[in-house]
Amino acid sequence: MSLIVQKYGGSSVADAASVKRVARRIVDTKKAGHDVVVVVSAMGDTTDELLDLAEQVSPLPPPRELDMLLTAGERISMALLAMAIHDLGAEARSYTGSQAGLITDSAHGAARIIDVSPGRITEALEQGAIPIVAGFQGVAQDTKDVTTLGRGGSDTTAVALAAAMGADVCEIYTDVDGVFSADPRVVPKARQVPFITYEEMLELAAVGAKVLHLRCVEYARRFSLPIHVRSSFSTKEGTWVMSPDAITAAIAEGRAMEQPIISGVAADINDAKITVVGVPDKPGEAAAIFRALANAKINVDMIVQNVSAAATGRTDVTFTCPQGSAQQAMDALQSNSGDIGFEALNVDDQIAKISLVGAGMRSHPGVSATFFSALADASVNVEMISTSEIRISIVTRVDDAQRAVQAIHSAFGLDADGEAVVYAGTGR
Amino acid sequence: MSLIVQKYGGSSVADAASVKRVARRIVDTKKAGHDVVVVVSAMGDTTDELLDLAEQVSPLPPPRELDMLLTAGERISMALLAMAIHDLGAEARSYTGSQAGLITDSAHGAARIIDVSPGRITEALEQGAIPIVAGFQGVAQDTKDVTTLGRGGSDTTAVALAAAMGADVCEIYTDVDGVFSADPRVVPKARQVPFITYEEMLELAAVGAKVLHLRCVEYARRFSLPIHVRSSFSTKEGTWVMSPDAITAAIAEGRAMEQPIISGVAADINDAKITVVGVPDKPGEAAAIFRALANAKINVDMIVQNVSAAATGRTDVTFTCPQGSAQQAMDALQSNSGDIGFEALNVDDQIAKISLVGAGMRSHPGVSATFFSALADASVNVEMISTSEIRISIVTRVDDAQRAVQAIHSAFGLDADGEAVVYAGTGR
Repeated sequence: MSLIVQKYGGSSVADAASVKRVARRIVDTKKAGHDVVVVVSAMGDTTDELLDLAEQVSPLPPPRELDMLLTAGERISMALLAMAIHDLGAEARSYTGSQAGLITDSAHGAARIIDVSPGRITEALEQGAIPIVAGFQGVAQDTKDVTTLGRGGSDTTAVALAAAMGADVCEIYTDVDGVFSADPRVVPKARQVPFITYEEMLELAAVGAKVLHLRCVEYARRFSLPIHVRSSFSTKEGTWVMSPDAITAAIAEGRAMEQPIISGVAADINDAKITVVGVPDKPGEAAAIFRALANAKINVDMIVQNVSAAATGRTDVTFTCPQGSAQQAMDALQSNSGDIGFEALNVDDQIAKISLVGAGMRSHPGVSATFFSALADASVNVEMISTSEIRISIVTRVDDAQRAVQAIHSAFGLDADGEAVVYAGTGR
Repeated sequence: MSLIVQKYGGSSVADAASVKRVARRIVDTKKAGHDVVVVVSAMGDTTDELLDLAEQVSPLPPPRELDMLLTAGERISMALLAMAIHDLGAEARSYTGSQAGLITDSAHGAARIIDVSPGRITEALEQGAIPIVAGFQGVAQDTKDVTTLGRGGSDTTAVALAAAMGADVCEIYTDVDGVFSADPRVVPKARQVPFITYEEMLELAAVGAKVLHLRCVEYARRFSLPIHVRSSFSTKEGTWVMSPDAITAAIAEGRAMEQPIISGVAADINDAKITVVGVPDKPGEAAAIFRALANAKINVDMIVQNVSAAATGRTDVTFTCPQGSAQQAMDALQSNSGDIGFEALNVDDQIAKISLVGAGMRSHPGVSATFFSALADASVNVEMISTSEIRISIVTRVDDAQRAVQAIHSAFGLDADGEAVVYAGTGR
């Protein structure tokens, strides 16, 4: 018997029929002899509807009240799910984040979990019941106010609860079959990845793969908790996110083939590129730029500085940041122009960041050569380059993104025989 | 400066515009120098929509989960109301029943308040904020589960909180101007009652007047807390529900005219009449009938036993109960027919109970004579009669109800000069 934490996203519980289908799946897991703890998001569009109501009432609602409002969403889905399970003859009890012991700081809208005290959940399990826990929400340690965890919050709830309870696995149910070697909507021949390390998953999440949120993977890595990403619409095995050692063990047990060199290709079209033109080429200038951006809390990603043109004594500094922060970044630079001393600012949001991720890169030379040859053969112009130990990223025109991803995917022999299945909708 | 608890029903916060209107009213009260605590129901149809969702998922949902589901309703309205108040420049903080210290027993769906510990509410007031409390809900003392108080629950929340905090008045905002001498939809010339005693209000609530729920009036009477029932759609004075001494004081201060003999006429068309035919006329038979009904938790109201027909040694026992319990009552009697020994059971749901309520009845003879003359003049047939110290009730055909109420209303000189204003919708 194992302890399994199952997380169902909003698309898995979009209506009464879906709620019943998920209930059946949970009861089947229980009947197979496992202890099950369920984490659930708000139904389908509930969160958007609540945000719309808030907007009708107030242009800038206080974050404490917005959290109180939004947490009504999971309250509805979790109660309905408990009812549906009860109808199948099993006992289920729903718990708010606060009742489940999800203790957070008081940063409303983006609270961080600082402790998990799942006493009531353990008690419910001991009494043979299936606890249903509201995802995305917690209670602030100091103010005792209701908080929400921000984007990807329900995944984080599930992983945090699984880690605190010593679960054997955290199953994240979503609307795709698992993690793919590329977005199946861009590359129809994308291949499902059976095993992936936390590190690779973090790199993929950071460069635009939407399956799992960064925070939840970081949390799982810290506790070496296996995550199983799978579809709530089928019973197929999904993708296991684990430590390299756990994957090696799985290979030794014959549960997995040898790990591929490359796990995936991702495209992120939500970044903007800003060029600071004509910066005096002397020590401290770059520091002034990035200090100004850091003070404005801009998340800078790639940075390139051109070789200085000797005649002018000036250089250009280019960086990327999320499109949503571009205006803020421009404002921050403009208001520090006295310190920085540039000639002009250019912003460009027609870019895409294409990334290749794979733990095998470390030990396999020639990956870069194959990568850049593929881009050259597909006539994709490279504007910026950045690398980590297990990732290569480039910036190109947004119009070239699809062609670039497809070319790289083929060049590394990742194309599958069949086409991937894509379901509609996404969870919170 | 006084402490005022204001309760707004579902019809007062039916949409974003109504929420903003109510917020303005609350802020105005605060600006007039009062401390304000607000209790709010779920918006308009929210509760019905949530019940509909539950029905789609499960035919007989577990009461614990139904309570968890329904309490999402107030969570939404209270957060929106706090946002709207914030937008007007005042500080507001919303609190669930549990956060506000509404401690109940664990009878899900009809929980009783056993303690009120409004520590966080007092603290919010001290910090100059306006606390917004979810009506209708609490937390069970033993299980720590979320509970709901059942029908009229939000009024009870408001009165309980007002009593615990030593408020000067509990204002119940609704969609009518106050308590009327009859239902204005039946008697257009119904007159608004400026002052009414708890006792009279209890009798009126018990016989079908929907303005205030029985439990909330009982609670207010126990703590001698004045209730001011008024419309959230106008700024007119409503109806004050107070102790006789407080009304006497108000009359002495010139705030009120002398109290009328009669406060109102009410019709209740939700009862059924059951006749147990041919009961042996010997001691213990009536006891057997009402023991069977009590065991089945049937709320029996009026009881009449006909004079025994000497020839047969048998008699008929007739009683009324809510239509919703009629089938259950029949079943309970049928399954105890061995003990009771009757010949037949007749049920009749085409009845109306017409009641006249007034504290002045005690000291004014002739009230009954006027009452029955009015009914006779209007050709209303009286089937059953029951009286208390301050009430006379009769049962008649449901088709005669409107005519009966109008005739009595006129006979006691209650008709006003103008017509009453009736607003749409009702609160929870």
